Amino acid sequence: MNIERLPTVVAFGGGHGLSASLGALRRITDRLTAIVTVADDGGSSGRIRAELDCLPPGDLRMALAALCGDDESGRTWADVLQYRFPGDGSLGGHAIGNLLIAGLWQRLGGDPVAGLEMVARLLGARGRVLPMSAVPLEIEADVVGLDPSVPDEVGTVHGQEKVAKTTAEVRAVRLIPADPPASVQAVQAVRDADWLILGPGSWFTSVIPHLLVPQLAEAIVDTGARRILTLNVQSDAETKGASAARHLELLAEHAPALRLDVVLADSSFVRDDPHLESYATSLGAELVVADIAHRDGSARHDPLRLAATYAEVMGV
Amino acid sequence: MNIERLPTVVAFGGGHGLSASLGALRRITDRLTAIVTVADDGGSSGRIRAELDCLPPGDLRMALAALCGDDESGRTWADVLQYRFPGDGSLGGHAIGNLLIAGLWQRLGGDPVAGLEMVARLLGARGRVLPMSAVPLEIEADVVGLDPSVPDEVGTVHGQEKVAKTTAEVRAVRLIPADPPASVQAVQAVRDADWLILGPGSWFTSVIPHLLVPQLAEAIVDTGARRILTLNVQSDAETKGASAARHLELLAEHAPALRLDVVLADSSFVRDDPHLESYATSLGAELVVADIAHRDGSARHDPLRLAATYAEVMGV
Repeated sequence: MNIERLPTVVAFGGGHGLSASLGALRRITDRLTAIVTVADDGGSSGRIRAELDCLPPGDLRMALAALCGDDESGRTWADVLQYRFPGDGSLGGHAIGNLLIAGLWQRLGGDPVAGLEMVARLLGARGRVLPMSAVPLEIEADVVGLDPSVPDEVGTVHGQEKVAKTTAEVRAVRLIPADPPASVQAVQAVRDADWLILGPGSWFTSVIPHLLVPQLAEAIVDTGARRILTLNVQSDAETKGASAARHLELLAEHAPALRLDVVLADSSFVRDDPHLESYATSLGAELVVADIAHRDGSARHDPLRLAATYAEVMGV
Repeated sequence: MNIERLPTVVAFGGGHGLSASLGALRRITDRLTAIVTVADDGGSSGRIRAELDCLPPGDLRMALAALCGDDESGRTWADVLQYRFPGDGSLGGHAIGNLLIAGLWQRLGGDPVAGLEMVARLLGARGRVLPMSAVPLEIEADVVGLDPSVPDEVGTVHGQEKVAKTTAEVRAVRLIPADPPASVQAVQAVRDADWLILGPGSWFTSVIPHLLVPQLAEAIVDTGARRILTLNVQSDAETKGASAARHLELLAEHAPALRLDVVLADSSFVRDDPHLESYATSLGAELVVADIAHRDGSARHDPLRLAATYAEVMGV
């Protein structure tokens, strides 16, 4: 009997968008790697990277929790790692998993991947979680409208948390340092993949940053894997009313060499967007429109609908 | 074939003394329960109990680590849980395991035993670890010589860390609150045991406190289990040159109803101690003298020699 191999999939992102992506993908393959942004400077992650000079652990922790096993032990540990200490003392607000991951990094030293693998085993995770870079990064954005009284003035916003929350219009983002080393394992995973999944997620702070790590961007462009870009269900705090087509344009502006195979969008987001299909075509992609928004009407994907659509696109 | 059941053993203590005890006992039985003091107010444990109003986790963590499985995963996790964050920031000095246990308590709520059981499973622990009381405690000591210029004056030292480090002579200790609730599971373990092991450990802050929790002391006195008191290899910072016999006397002063079956002492500590045997006899105990000190000459027990002596005493 010939049992067909499940596809090898790499999903890029950070935070809630990547969680949604992994929550769908872990239902259709067990050959799954998450590659995660490491530029967070807010909250628990920000305090930890400032104190210990390590990668910000929060987005990595969320990705691990999203891959947790469905048995009781996996579910319980995932829930515990996501839990935050109460109060406003020195531990208040820290996610337990952030402290555990940061502690493992301190204890194990060297490559941060070893600590992530220990937590993955603890959770019975259905896949691997890798940082996109081996060093902590910062994000800086060019914006317009920072000062409402001078709406056309171009300004700069520094730091992921501030970029994610700015009321100004973000035009472009860059990483500091500009040429960070990619995670060796992440580059290898991209080269070995059958499918790459970019998005959904915060466009400037979770989706685009992967394309700004030179070795990783090069691997994404060069790999034989097919590339799916999954658009958000609607524009968010970072893209502020931008159309679906404008999301594609922003991505292409940050990664001119990138070609895509599939652009996946929820039907509600592409209505009255006459340019989307031609933008997708110009990037080499087929536009796939499906009902993948959550049934509860919130601005996120339904993991099972998303899983069904991925399965159809990938032919599994 | 009749396979004889291994003995059910309960070991009392806290910190390094209990670790030595468990390191010996886990080699001769898999029916092992550690009952641990919860009055620590120093270091990482003191900071955690002050911020989160929970049991001090440190001595419980050390007992868990001492019971860790001998496989690579168990050894690695035990090592990680014992590791302390570097630096003097808000995380500096915290043992990773303390944060994990305290986080589990916060997340799981209610009975602290559930969180300890989760860490035990993580470590593949060879036994259970229970707090002696369900509430955090304080230790207070009556001392003489606190002020060297008034050597006979009786004074009071408050707090476990200060009692453990005082240069004055400790005469008696008590718990605050004076009548704390015992851990229900600890009382049951004492009633179900074949053997109870008191000591080794810091005499006033790790060995005697168990006898000051009324329900636990009552169970220790009433149980059908046989009771072994293991003396330290020599007097320590808390007992300051007291003879082996004086150690027995101090214990009896704090628990007048206690009867013992065996007093186990290292041969070096009982030399020139003419009263020890009669003190042991007056408590109902046989004095067993053996070479159980560590071969490296340090003031601690050799776990394998101690295991061999326990096995002989218990007939396993």
